[in-house]
Amino acid sequence: MALPVITYTAGRLKVLDQTRLPGTAEMVELGDLDSVVHAIKTLMVRGAPLIGVTAAYGVCVALLPLTESAQARERAPRVLARLGASRPTAVNLFWALERMERVVASLPERGWREALEEEAVAIHRETKAQDAALAAHGMELLTQGARVITHCNTGPLATGGQGTALGVLIEANRTLGGLHVYVDETRPRWQGAQLTTWELANHQVPHTLMVDAAAATLMRQGNIHSVWVGADRIAANGDTANKIGTYALALAARHHGVPFHVVAPTSTVDLELDDGAGIPIEERDAEEVAAPRGLALAPQGTVVWNPAFDVTPADLIDAIVTELGVFRGPRFDLRSALAG
Amino acid sequence: MALPVITYTAGRLKVLDQTRLPGTAEMVELGDLDSVVHAIKTLMVRGAPLIGVTAAYGVCVALLPLTESAQARERAPRVLARLGASRPTAVNLFWALERMERVVASLPERGWREALEEEAVAIHRETKAQDAALAAHGMELLTQGARVITHCNTGPLATGGQGTALGVLIEANRTLGGLHVYVDETRPRWQGAQLTTWELANHQVPHTLMVDAAAATLMRQGNIHSVWVGADRIAANGDTANKIGTYALALAARHHGVPFHVVAPTSTVDLELDDGAGIPIEERDAEEVAAPRGLALAPQGTVVWNPAFDVTPADLIDAIVTELGVFRGPRFDLRSALAG
Repeated sequence: MALPVITYTAGRLKVLDQTRLPGTAEMVELGDLDSVVHAIKTLMVRGAPLIGVTAAYGVCVALLPLTESAQARERAPRVLARLGASRPTAVNLFWALERMERVVASLPERGWREALEEEAVAIHRETKAQDAALAAHGMELLTQGARVITHCNTGPLATGGQGTALGVLIEANRTLGGLHVYVDETRPRWQGAQLTTWELANHQVPHTLMVDAAAATLMRQGNIHSVWVGADRIAANGDTANKIGTYALALAARHHGVPFHVVAPTSTVDLELDDGAGIPIEERDAEEVAAPRGLALAPQGTVVWNPAFDVTPADLIDAIVTELGVFRGPRFDLRSALAG
Repeated sequence: MALPVITYTAGRLKVLDQTRLPGTAEMVELGDLDSVVHAIKTLMVRGAPLIGVTAAYGVCVALLPLTESAQARERAPRVLARLGASRPTAVNLFWALERMERVVASLPERGWREALEEEAVAIHRETKAQDAALAAHGMELLTQGARVITHCNTGPLATGGQGTALGVLIEANRTLGGLHVYVDETRPRWQGAQLTTWELANHQVPHTLMVDAAAATLMRQGNIHSVWVGADRIAANGDTANKIGTYALALAARHHGVPFHVVAPTSTVDLELDDGAGIPIEERDAEEVAAPRGLALAPQGTVVWNPAFDVTPADLIDAIVTELGVFRGPRFDLRSALAG
């Protein structure tokens, strides 16, 4: 798990540019607020938990150059707003920014820089600890030699720790052995083809890549143990926003009696939402579909619908794995579950 | 419908190179058997009915240069075998080759070239007539202003006539008006993004492009009237092989109560097969997924599963539209239906 997905040392934030993987693995310094916002918007850093960690460090990058805490407090609202507007769906972003906001609200005059940094580092450290707990709990749902399907990327690259859903699978292969992971390519951004295959290869997990639309047929051919995905936002009733294609995968899994598991830290749960209807769904640029990577596919001017996420209703989810343990469907009451 | 998708004049076969659309619309002459086989294998011509028409003309291209009918009869088995091996799933290919084989078997000594050409031209002409009948019958299932989803390309480009499923939609928009067609991009070969959008634009049909995995969410948002696809082979019980992703689309349609329609001439029906289990599914090159159009996505050596087609069980199909009329599910008995 030694991938340098994100580092923050001596006030300098560096991230692995995920848009250039697997060909080029290069750390890029994000030296100011603009760079941090740009990195999140362009998916240089992505994955709901990692977006949260990056935004927390981003607050430090934006405020630490100021000369005193009063200036930082004054500047903070604009910084938090800009980071909060970088991507609308992942709730971990807002969770991390709220934690930073609380620190800003009670910023000491002396040691204010350290106070901000400590909170960002704590968010990163807690994310890593949560990932370890997710892996431990998630493994309960797997068996030696299981053939599983995953969508998008939910490994170390998605969290800065050991990952969520993919972290479970990597850990299960290490301890139980014999897993085979079928990877959806995950159009339009190809996180499965580019990132998940790369991480599985790095961790010596046997895997096979396929187009998203092939997963249903793979399930029909049988012998698929379970489906594993992450989450960008989970409502109180368990409705889950995740990468576009997750809902179709959940429908196919239910039809074939294949268990469908969501893995996410509780910072992904948005208790302000009763259900998934209130989750804002980011729509991204038409070019990602019509001319991906400059590859002109559709005629000029073709109208595109490019939602980045979809919402899978809770009744299609068999289990939600969190750092606190496994919640099992068909009904979830996360408000009660997380009340303690 | 004046697109020159395929022409055969004075013994010269030319096809529109569909791999270069929509950027470049260029007719390419297929001057010998190798060129015809290559054009089919590389999807320069594609679409089950058009593959049949192309193969029929291909027999002419291969045999007409010979000096007498005895030579043609002797050479024919190898020619038919090579064309038959060019793509394994579309049954129209074998249907067309069997018709040419019957002509070869009773080839006259005088006028043998004309006999071969007449049969190939007849196959092409009948395909066009069937398309017109498909459009007329299919329209019965549509209403003014219907919002529909389609997968892959089933327009004029797929048949050399006016198309199958897309032919229905184009005709319905022309006569009923107000259709809106949502187009799956259709990975891995992007026939939806490249060909269907182009044909819909050419015929002034309002349309929107999306990734394949977004269709289920579009249905969940409601207001989708029906789903329309073609077929590469239909078994006697109605099980239908079609482009990979069709099965996932049918599952989502059923879940949302959206009617799912298959449009194909009866030459697509394979009465030798009781059900879809016997349909051979072509697996194509890993590069189409791992490095499409040379765009290196996955790490070198990534294992890929790339089935070109899937099988949708008949019980998910609401209607099969043929040139003879509309057969309605949930059960189909095509052996009885086509016995007359």
